[in-house]
Amino acid sequence: MSDFSGSLQTLQARYGVAIAVPKGKDLVVVNTHGTQAIDFWALNSANLDEFQSMEHTRSRLSRVIPKVGDAIYSNRRAALLTLTEDTSPGVHDTLLCACSPEIYQEHGCAPGHRSCEGNFHEALGAIGKTLGCTPPPFNLFMNVAVGPDSEVIRAAPVSKPGDYVRFQAEMDVVVVMSACPQDVTPINGDDCTPRDIQYAVV
Amino acid sequence: MSDFSGSLQTLQARYGVAIAVPKGKDLVVVNTHGTQAIDFWALNSANLDEFQSMEHTRSRLSRVIPKVGDAIYSNRRAALLTLTEDTSPGVHDTLLCACSPEIYQEHGCAPGHRSCEGNFHEALGAIGKTLGCTPPPFNLFMNVAVGPDSEVIRAAPVSKPGDYVRFQAEMDVVVVMSACPQDVTPINGDDCTPRDIQYAVV
Repeated sequence: MSDFSGSLQTLQARYGVAIAVPKGKDLVVVNTHGTQAIDFWALNSANLDEFQSMEHTRSRLSRVIPKVGDAIYSNRRAALLTLTEDTSPGVHDTLLCACSPEIYQEHGCAPGHRSCEGNFHEALGAIGKTLGCTPPPFNLFMNVAVGPDSEVIRAAPVSKPGDYVRFQAEMDVVVVMSACPQDVTPINGDDCTPRDIQYAVV
Repeated sequence: MSDFSGSLQTLQARYGVAIAVPKGKDLVVVNTHGTQAIDFWALNSANLDEFQSMEHTRSRLSRVIPKVGDAIYSNRRAALLTLTEDTSPGVHDTLLCACSPEIYQEHGCAPGHRSCEGNFHEALGAIGKTLGCTPPPFNLFMNVAVGPDSEVIRAAPVSKPGDYVRFQAEMDVVVVMSACPQDVTPINGDDCTPRDIQYAVV
């Protein structure tokens, strides 16, 4: 595995970014402070209508949470990226939607609260692209379990500062990441404080 | 609960249908032979870009499988329908994608095998509508469980002949249903034979 420390860039807490990852390159996503959930999407650079699908990924893997060696699949059932390394306990989420203006409205927040859904479209717009929908995200480091009666159980992250995941691109992809702005529930840690993350393309 | 037996219509095995269900009306979906998985979608009639989202539904319910009394939510987090009655054991699926041409290609089927994804778009087209994506379906009567290591476990249906679910529309919706054409795996019963279903708007 190549070192990535010299290539790290920072994604500010509550914000999103869209980056190109060419086929064969690695993308490393670092949970710098250990407590930050990161909403993650990959799309086919050549055709954004082919995008990451959590429902196809679960179907293809017969598993709710991808593990090292597993690919993330598109809505055309093609491998977009393979998860090649994960220094965290491997607890990620594929079940829940990105947070959205409607969620913060339910929480009673003032209008204009940043959201992962807003970040997804803002980040795509910053590279001159648009998509007419918000695909289901892969929520890195987000601690969500399924209970015996099909309950969705949300809890604080179990990752440590500096834990990272590494993906290898299986095709030319655009990756969008959002350092989740959730500051009402403890999904980003018990102090409900979104924090910066880091990433590198190597 | 109103009787629906005089209003039943048949949906042929392997095919789809799109129907309007006005706000306040009930839609009953009958698993006539007990073994048939039915891919199910609801969309806002006034704006098809607002469609059923399994990831929002799981988030809003904090539950993987909706139960009687639960609503099915849209990608704008609005209630589309409420599940008001379920005579089956309540085993349905929100985790897996609709079957698609790519899945039958993986199975080694000849090109042109019908699919729930194809049925979704064909049925919308038959009422003069289109959507640029295939939302994650609510797979009625489809027996999918989550194991202790996050495995997705597919099994034959546990519903009985004549079991039905009833939904009340919370807004004017278009509902698309597909009597799943899967005939390679036993998701439609151990004899791998798709069968007709029935439905009624009352």
